[in-house]
Amino acid sequence: MAPTLALVGATGAVGTVMIDIINGKESVPWGEIRLIASARSAGKKITVRGEELTVVALSPEAFDGVDVAMFDVPDEISAEWAPVAAARGAVAVDNSGAFRMDDEVPLVVPEVNADQVGARPKGIIANPNCTTLSMMAALGALHHEFELTELVVASYQAVSGAGKEGVDRLYAELNAVAGKPLGVKAGDVRAELESAGLPIADSPFPAPLAFNVVPSAGSYKGDGWYSEELKVRNESRKILGIPGLKVSATCVRVPVVTTHSLAVHATFAREVTVEAAHKVFGAQQSVVLVDDPERNVFPTPAEVVGADPTYVGRIRQALDFPNTLDFFVCGDNLRKGAALNTYEIAEKLAPEFA
Amino acid sequence: MAPTLALVGATGAVGTVMIDIINGKESVPWGEIRLIASARSAGKKITVRGEELTVVALSPEAFDGVDVAMFDVPDEISAEWAPVAAARGAVAVDNSGAFRMDDEVPLVVPEVNADQVGARPKGIIANPNCTTLSMMAALGALHHEFELTELVVASYQAVSGAGKEGVDRLYAELNAVAGKPLGVKAGDVRAELESAGLPIADSPFPAPLAFNVVPSAGSYKGDGWYSEELKVRNESRKILGIPGLKVSATCVRVPVVTTHSLAVHATFAREVTVEAAHKVFGAQQSVVLVDDPERNVFPTPAEVVGADPTYVGRIRQALDFPNTLDFFVCGDNLRKGAALNTYEIAEKLAPEFA
Repeated sequence: MAPTLALVGATGAVGTVMIDIINGKESVPWGEIRLIASARSAGKKITVRGEELTVVALSPEAFDGVDVAMFDVPDEISAEWAPVAAARGAVAVDNSGAFRMDDEVPLVVPEVNADQVGARPKGIIANPNCTTLSMMAALGALHHEFELTELVVASYQAVSGAGKEGVDRLYAELNAVAGKPLGVKAGDVRAELESAGLPIADSPFPAPLAFNVVPSAGSYKGDGWYSEELKVRNESRKILGIPGLKVSATCVRVPVVTTHSLAVHATFAREVTVEAAHKVFGAQQSVVLVDDPERNVFPTPAEVVGADPTYVGRIRQALDFPNTLDFFVCGDNLRKGAALNTYEIAEKLAPEFA
Repeated sequence: MAPTLALVGATGAVGTVMIDIINGKESVPWGEIRLIASARSAGKKITVRGEELTVVALSPEAFDGVDVAMFDVPDEISAEWAPVAAARGAVAVDNSGAFRMDDEVPLVVPEVNADQVGARPKGIIANPNCTTLSMMAALGALHHEFELTELVVASYQAVSGAGKEGVDRLYAELNAVAGKPLGVKAGDVRAELESAGLPIADSPFPAPLAFNVVPSAGSYKGDGWYSEELKVRNESRKILGIPGLKVSATCVRVPVVTTHSLAVHATFAREVTVEAAHKVFGAQQSVVLVDDPERNVFPTPAEVVGADPTYVGRIRQALDFPNTLDFFVCGDNLRKGAALNTYEIAEKLAPEFA
């Protein structure tokens, strides 16, 4: 019998993308697909693969008969409910931060470490943070060939990483500043937003994003670091299986709706050339090479948003650092960065239950 | 007699900021101030220090009696006319790219290498590129104390680095997209701009900047590198006097009007702590420390634009790289990044002619 898949958080931002992904597939290995959400959303009808499904409320019984349960919900909901799903016999594939650094929970990017899906003593598999994921398919392919040793990363992160609230805020800010000659005096953007009824106190971001970039993502963790920067370090180490990988990341929010970009400076144990990197990326199905800078061909977030692959360009050999490449990568933070990777993990599990 | 100062390019974007700077000074060491521009702008009246001056046309005679001539004009105008000014006895302080890497032309940031102003066999002193300048006061202070050896930089560059055309383009793009749910499908921003009569072919940038970031600045120079990235490397080496400094830069244009930001990963020969860096910056008059991340206190470009100092925050010790700091720096690319530094060089020269 075909296995049963559950989607917890079916009505949220990532859950909605997840349903798009499932609906876009030519075929899926699932029998029943069950949509689960908060009691508030229960009863809602959503069409999945041509069939109208009714959202059911999150409860222990909702997991009965489920083989694989994908969680696209906040950390605290996952922390409570993924173990419940596992106790009822489902494998929980969790897209929150609750279990990522748990030693007994594998952190999986199928292109990089699909072999880890079986090593799940808690019945839980974690999906990485979207910023890490945006570069991981590309980085994993290079690591496999050249052995990564050092990573210096600066991010250009989209507002949808902060959910619908982040997207609404950016649209509202741009609306408020459009047609005005702002961004030329310190604080003039902030003042304009204030007078338009959009004080920063009401924003999910600590500073204006219109005409601005904001060097903070996630919560403050001490010693100068924000959580997103530590996630890039710790999750990269775990996914790639390099406990001693040297990583420095600076995470910066930019006025882009969706798709994270990263400027990556990556050093390897073995010699690496641009040509060799092109060859590696050419062989990696989930990476698209967009790299002809002489003709202004490189990826930009607004030009690749909404697609599954990781887009890589601006690949060049560092002039002064041996065995080092600099490159620019764009990945849709809602697709590969969240829903898609979670779904790909779930599909890897399907044969176990077929 | 007080020396005579000339400003070539008085009616341009940087020239206008230059006049603001001169007008904002409590006192200046100059006698006559002469405004020079193209024949087209000659005859225009501009008020400088309460006196209405008439712009004169660029000609060899325009430099007669001039002690210091500041050039804020395109490369090819500087290449032709700075030597003319020097031949007429003026010291040319040039803000173009024409002479920066000339071995016989010092490249000066007064806080870092003011001693170089005397070493000018051609009678020309160059002002660095705005991206390099945006971090140089901060970096120079750290280098002086800890000896810089490696630099990995990612930039978040403002559109005014591409002149008035760049600023007009960003305003027009934001105007065209405001109120529309764009940035969610690949190419939807480009299509909207197209239908609003703003095709990318007419833009100074090779891709949309609304809802986007663009990983290219300057012209393509081969081997994957754009000119701005090579300038950061070569000019940093020359200003700091470290011919072997290891540098990798990725330059990215962002939808910010004015003020460049940089994520800097800097490695030193000697041990460095956040506390020691705070102390160094505290002693550097032209650096302002904005660094209390726990309270969301850090510099952002729209919040510091229009001011002279370099703003530094997010200073933290790299977790995995010895003797290394990561930090975020914002500097107004039209002020310290262009007009202000040029003027500061000119002021350093004034005593020679007093």
